[in-house]
Amino acid sequence: MISWTNFDKLASTAKLAALPKVDVKEAMTGESGAERVKKYSVPMAAGLTFNYGAKAVDDNILEALAELAKEAQLTEKYAELYNGAVINTGEKRLVLHQLCRGQLGNDVIADGVNKREFYLSQQKKAADFAEKVYSGAITNENGEKFTTVCQVGIGGSDLGPRALYLALENWAIKNNSLKMQAKFVSNVDPDDAAGVMNSMDLAHSLFIVVSKSGTTLETLTNESFVRATLAKAGLDPNKHMLAVTSETSPLAKSDAFLEAFFMDDYIGGRYSSSSCVGAVILTLALGAETFEAIMKGAAEMDALSKNEDLLQNPSMLDALIGVYERNILGYPATAVLPYSQALSRFPAHLQQLDMESNGKHVNRFGEPVNYPTGPIIFGEPGTNGQHSFYQLLHQGTDITPMQFVGFKNSQLGDDIEIQGSTSQAKLCANVAAQIVAFACGKDDEDPNKQFEGGRPSSIIIGDQLTPESLGALLAHFENKVMFQGFVWNLNSFDQEGVQLGKLLAKRVLAHDTDGALKEYSDLLNI
Amino acid sequence: MISWTNFDKLASTAKLAALPKVDVKEAMTGESGAERVKKYSVPMAAGLTFNYGAKAVDDNILEALAELAKEAQLTEKYAELYNGAVINTGEKRLVLHQLCRGQLGNDVIADGVNKREFYLSQQKKAADFAEKVYSGAITNENGEKFTTVCQVGIGGSDLGPRALYLALENWAIKNNSLKMQAKFVSNVDPDDAAGVMNSMDLAHSLFIVVSKSGTTLETLTNESFVRATLAKAGLDPNKHMLAVTSETSPLAKSDAFLEAFFMDDYIGGRYSSSSCVGAVILTLALGAETFEAIMKGAAEMDALSKNEDLLQNPSMLDALIGVYERNILGYPATAVLPYSQALSRFPAHLQQLDMESNGKHVNRFGEPVNYPTGPIIFGEPGTNGQHSFYQLLHQGTDITPMQFVGFKNSQLGDDIEIQGSTSQAKLCANVAAQIVAFACGKDDEDPNKQFEGGRPSSIIIGDQLTPESLGALLAHFENKVMFQGFVWNLNSFDQEGVQLGKLLAKRVLAHDTDGALKEYSDLLNI
Repeated sequence: MISWTNFDKLASTAKLAALPKVDVKEAMTGESGAERVKKYSVPMAAGLTFNYGAKAVDDNILEALAELAKEAQLTEKYAELYNGAVINTGEKRLVLHQLCRGQLGNDVIADGVNKREFYLSQQKKAADFAEKVYSGAITNENGEKFTTVCQVGIGGSDLGPRALYLALENWAIKNNSLKMQAKFVSNVDPDDAAGVMNSMDLAHSLFIVVSKSGTTLETLTNESFVRATLAKAGLDPNKHMLAVTSETSPLAKSDAFLEAFFMDDYIGGRYSSSSCVGAVILTLALGAETFEAIMKGAAEMDALSKNEDLLQNPSMLDALIGVYERNILGYPATAVLPYSQALSRFPAHLQQLDMESNGKHVNRFGEPVNYPTGPIIFGEPGTNGQHSFYQLLHQGTDITPMQFVGFKNSQLGDDIEIQGSTSQAKLCANVAAQIVAFACGKDDEDPNKQFEGGRPSSIIIGDQLTPESLGALLAHFENKVMFQGFVWNLNSFDQEGVQLGKLLAKRVLAHDTDGALKEYSDLLNI
Repeated sequence: MISWTNFDKLASTAKLAALPKVDVKEAMTGESGAERVKKYSVPMAAGLTFNYGAKAVDDNILEALAELAKEAQLTEKYAELYNGAVINTGEKRLVLHQLCRGQLGNDVIADGVNKREFYLSQQKKAADFAEKVYSGAITNENGEKFTTVCQVGIGGSDLGPRALYLALENWAIKNNSLKMQAKFVSNVDPDDAAGVMNSMDLAHSLFIVVSKSGTTLETLTNESFVRATLAKAGLDPNKHMLAVTSETSPLAKSDAFLEAFFMDDYIGGRYSSSSCVGAVILTLALGAETFEAIMKGAAEMDALSKNEDLLQNPSMLDALIGVYERNILGYPATAVLPYSQALSRFPAHLQQLDMESNGKHVNRFGEPVNYPTGPIIFGEPGTNGQHSFYQLLHQGTDITPMQFVGFKNSQLGDDIEIQGSTSQAKLCANVAAQIVAFACGKDDEDPNKQFEGGRPSSIIIGDQLTPESLGALLAHFENKVMFQGFVWNLNSFDQEGVQLGKLLAKRVLAHDTDGALKEYSDLLNI
């Protein structure tokens, strides 16, 4: 029997709070530090490893976290989710993104269909369509092949697919598997669509309009912008447009698209990279094989998340360490720091994934909670960040926990040896150095050169950023966020917080304003 | 007589803390809200306006902030700075970036030269060089014109110039003034340089190596990478490379560069967009006229920052409101939210500017402080962010103050009217709506749809994002950060926090490690 209980009502929460804290500096210095790095490590999918040696935990705290995981029934709740329970209580919806990449439990039948089969059928449709585009069976109005594909979507229809594409673009070029270049238009700012379209060979471009409801203001506006620009260029917009939408949306039955691919209400925007939202653009750009490999890595990670043993379940462990940092240690933010230029937009995706899922003030029953929930998430790739905001992370007055990601090998293999080491070795040396610098600090007679240390971090290490390891990373963070939502007793799958702004924006556009809203509208000449 | 005093020792700090807090929701609702938006507004340079109607201040708090500004001698300290005092005490250096764009006080003579003249001479050198590139007086080894320019630098040599270039790239295309396309390589990750170079027409490309000391590991490594790649392509690297460095650096006298442009120790990396670090690439890419216009907007803003009247000094006012939010209200982070796709990387620049300047735990005398200093800074352009992390900003358990930026007109003017409004109107309607939604919230019987409100924000409004207004924005935030550093009694111009990581990375590469550092190095196969 599943019991949905607030975090502060769990017996293990009080127990956890009462445990002595770990002095990260002391624990990570000397032989004890070496022992921790060896011991506090767990394999993930696709050859990744989650190492939490430099986190503020010890065996006692880990034991209490394991009790918390049990008491909060985290794996049972996960099973509820993948077996098709109505986990998104606010919107009364199932939560099925994992079904895009694997069958974790029972068949899930909803709306009269087997949902895994439905999602796979759409992936297959995308693959078949892509083959026709590559082969020239589907062409532009002049019988010429398409070379570029542009996603028109916002939020979850943009950030995840964009981050994944950028992560593999150079990898695909290197492996001669880049099928089409991908571009992205998201912002309602007309300069976004205009700037991107100016940079494209429109005659040979496909545009994918992504909106589940078919009513997202930004996306419909940008769709019209794209159509008008294509028409101005003497092209037939209907011959250049695809739709990714729900079967019941106005876009689904329109003749204005070459093809429509379907998603449904059981996959929220920020979890939709595995659905057609990601599948169509990533398949067209990178090929079906690459998209399948991403799904394979994600599926492995999803399967690993079923493990009831906390110490063998990296996503659940990462989640619980995050809860400990947020609620017991009181840290308000977390930095995500991938040492890989290809992951340049991955932090922006995680920012949405995490902050939109768990930035909530009510529990899943709509009752206000009286403990902190989701933290602020931010980050940039290393080593860039080292020359930017790391100053504050090292010597600022607040502590910010960190999540590093690093790979032993580069994607492209083009490298150069300078001063006895390759660039890749320098990159890896830097991430190793940072973890220890943050944890152990350094004493100095000059307080300005003093590093307090005690700043906790974890690292995910892989051999190389490949489609499989990227898929595993994607699923890891999705599952981490899901487990944290379970611990905090939140509904991590709705987003009521975006509604009020939409409502007021409509009023501004209808000139139905008063008070401050009218004044701001006037200042902005609306 | 200037007195450098810790924030908590100032009499006005205690007074400020004792004042009744403003209920932003109540203050911003109804007619009172309209009055605040009208009243709490101050002109900036280049036609910008700083509106702080939705901040948690009232006349009493503003009066106390004005007292604080006086007691902390903010404008006097600014005068010290621009008149050439050793404001960067840790490194014993003057702080002269403002001299790149105007003469605010006395002539500053250092190292035997008039520093303003020196900076201008380098800007002129960049302009003259650019003319020769455009005209074909300087060409590649085959006598062909250069079409692309790539900056090789990291941190301050990357983020500021990149953000400024991206802010004006489409504007320049629109105005037929884009002279060369600009690219950027920063990360020591070899995939960064390889990926960028793969996308370039190397034969017609210039590379600018930017390193003040001529010893930045990442940059020298990437320089070698670039040279090797050019040579592999059958090109003569020396005919494609420029240097931006100090006159005493090893790069300055090298024959391996077509030309060297000079900076000095009195302009720190994150403040160096106005120096040759920004001037060379921005002049080459956008033309000297555009770079001058950026400087003009910045100079106007610098001049405005001299105003002793807090309410007429937007950068000082923004700074003090930030201090109030950080130290009295206790908010640990600030979101920067430009409603302009062109400003997509401006938040990353501000993140470095702010967090590296004021993320400090010691005062300017090297003594530990016992109050919070610089906050975490993060952000993405709106409306994108609305569909991402705004959920947490609206309904999360913590409050995050916000800084919006918006423009009445788009840069490109290509727009489309849908449902009775243009995209630009929709963009502006959204930012107006968000400010009010954050401030006023909305009551609902369903707590999940309840918005508490009380979330403070300011907005900078301009007619259009142009070189002048961009320059004003740049200088505004530089001066804001400077004033906050003065209030917190910090040295905002050094960055000792980056040293330890560098040191440990060298030890890793020399295989001189033990304990945890050795373990991490092994895990990463170094």
